[in-house]
Amino acid sequence: MNAPQPVLPMAVPAEGLPARVRIHEVGARDGLQNEKATVPTEVKAEFIRRLAGTGLTTIEATSFVHPKWVPQLADAEELYPAVAGLPVSLPVLVPNARGLDRALTLGARRVAVFASATESFAKANLNRTVDEALAMFEPVVSRAKAQGVHVRGYLSMCFGDPWEGVVPLPQVVKVCRALLDMGCDELSLGDTIGVATPGHVTALLTALAEAGVPVSTLGVHFHDTYGQALSNTLAALQQGVTTVDASAGGLGGCPYAKSATGNLATEDLVWMLRGLGIDTGVDLGRLVATSVWMAAHLGRPSPSRTVRALSHQEQ
Amino acid sequence: MNAPQPVLPMAVPAEGLPARVRIHEVGARDGLQNEKATVPTEVKAEFIRRLAGTGLTTIEATSFVHPKWVPQLADAEELYPAVAGLPVSLPVLVPNARGLDRALTLGARRVAVFASATESFAKANLNRTVDEALAMFEPVVSRAKAQGVHVRGYLSMCFGDPWEGVVPLPQVVKVCRALLDMGCDELSLGDTIGVATPGHVTALLTALAEAGVPVSTLGVHFHDTYGQALSNTLAALQQGVTTVDASAGGLGGCPYAKSATGNLATEDLVWMLRGLGIDTGVDLGRLVATSVWMAAHLGRPSPSRTVRALSHQEQ
Repeated sequence: MNAPQPVLPMAVPAEGLPARVRIHEVGARDGLQNEKATVPTEVKAEFIRRLAGTGLTTIEATSFVHPKWVPQLADAEELYPAVAGLPVSLPVLVPNARGLDRALTLGARRVAVFASATESFAKANLNRTVDEALAMFEPVVSRAKAQGVHVRGYLSMCFGDPWEGVVPLPQVVKVCRALLDMGCDELSLGDTIGVATPGHVTALLTALAEAGVPVSTLGVHFHDTYGQALSNTLAALQQGVTTVDASAGGLGGCPYAKSATGNLATEDLVWMLRGLGIDTGVDLGRLVATSVWMAAHLGRPSPSRTVRALSHQEQ
Repeated sequence: MNAPQPVLPMAVPAEGLPARVRIHEVGARDGLQNEKATVPTEVKAEFIRRLAGTGLTTIEATSFVHPKWVPQLADAEELYPAVAGLPVSLPVLVPNARGLDRALTLGARRVAVFASATESFAKANLNRTVDEALAMFEPVVSRAKAQGVHVRGYLSMCFGDPWEGVVPLPQVVKVCRALLDMGCDELSLGDTIGVATPGHVTALLTALAEAGVPVSTLGVHFHDTYGQALSNTLAALQQGVTTVDASAGGLGGCPYAKSATGNLATEDLVWMLRGLGIDTGVDLGRLVATSVWMAAHLGRPSPSRTVRALSHQEQ
């Protein structure tokens, strides 16, 4: 008998799902910013180059935040020019007007702001109320838009908040509307502490649709803290969402969630989408190899089930 | 500001899902049979007692297989009487007529046989063709039924097979029909190597419905090898399935899949079902405590995301 081989999933499309999904890869920014060790700039650049080589088209590169707050990304000025020539979209996070200046100086054409759906997290993360944070972003977004720069609005704590508990849907809808009204091109609905479940996802997307928010402007950003990220993504796809945030190898995590598991792993997502016959343009083998390479640099195995299975890593 | 607290999911029912799901807990049998170390009988008994204390109603206890094949479960004769008085269903695996004799002698009222949808796995696991295996089970099932014993038919490799690749739907439907026709009360559709995706799950359940198999006779048994188990479960619930196999703490795995990750963790399942407002009767806190207790006996952390998050274990 021959040795058994891994069996890639048969593509069996399901009704009511999109034909194509765009993956917004956040490993290099959201993933690495939570690493304890600082990763050398050249390793980050090579990581982004390898990610671009997998077929990913949107790779969030870094954050122009003050180095005091996120020392892991203090090399944004060195990193961005090292990858800017890649034939992919390279959004960067800009927390405020100063961050936007730095990004625009380097020629960034896609930026992202980072808002909160809850007062507690706005206070903890931005030291502002929700409205004060929105007021801070407004001139940032309008200046970016005036220069033809694409703006993404991250919205964290869209489902649960560690201080406030369950987040009411109207509260999320209100901040989404405010971000779109100030000019954001797309939003990323974040389940920052990983407590969403599929019915909650459906309810929020339904509420947003009823409020006139086009689903084409919405991305979803699920955390795998309780193992729910992929089920929640499936629920979002069933509501017509076509932009999904994920992190190569499952890099990253939320410091407010008491678990090392964080972002949805891009590989686990690609596996499911491939099985659903949904085109992503991503070469899964190259992506796994990239995450294995990065895991070696970080000195610990990837938490992605697919990376472990396809790279034959033991847990 | 107060310290952040874990936020249990808000119950937000989704349309078209069942109101109640029965979890068929397999940790004590399917989980422990793959452990390298042999677990003492009294630890197994205490594990089952604690599982019963969580509200789980169906706890697969052990296997009356020849000790040569599964030495970890060689203590079935000692274990079963130690837990038989618990007020829960305690199915046991019986591989053949001899196994059924042993189970009936001890008063077992629920048994399970273990068939394969593919020739390769039937050969590897049972050293028989699929038809020869069914012929072996036929008198086992009919004798159990004649004594009023409930019979579950496990069917492995329902989606992919490590030697044969993708398993054609009609092949699975045919073996399901054969198991039901010989008298099985319920079936458990196994994704033994974890390669199923939601569209494939929907397609198989649709094919079974079209072949006249009542969904009420079907359980699903997903492995998390590629992180797909919970999404696949959601797809199955959307097709009306109300019996879901899971393993406390994610214990177990398939030796033919090159990964340590195996069964869907009961905790991750209960978290999702709770979020969906689906009643399981299970106390999640007690279940997590039970898995943490068992993990300490096994000397390694649970792979369940929910167990890790709620027990504050670091990965």
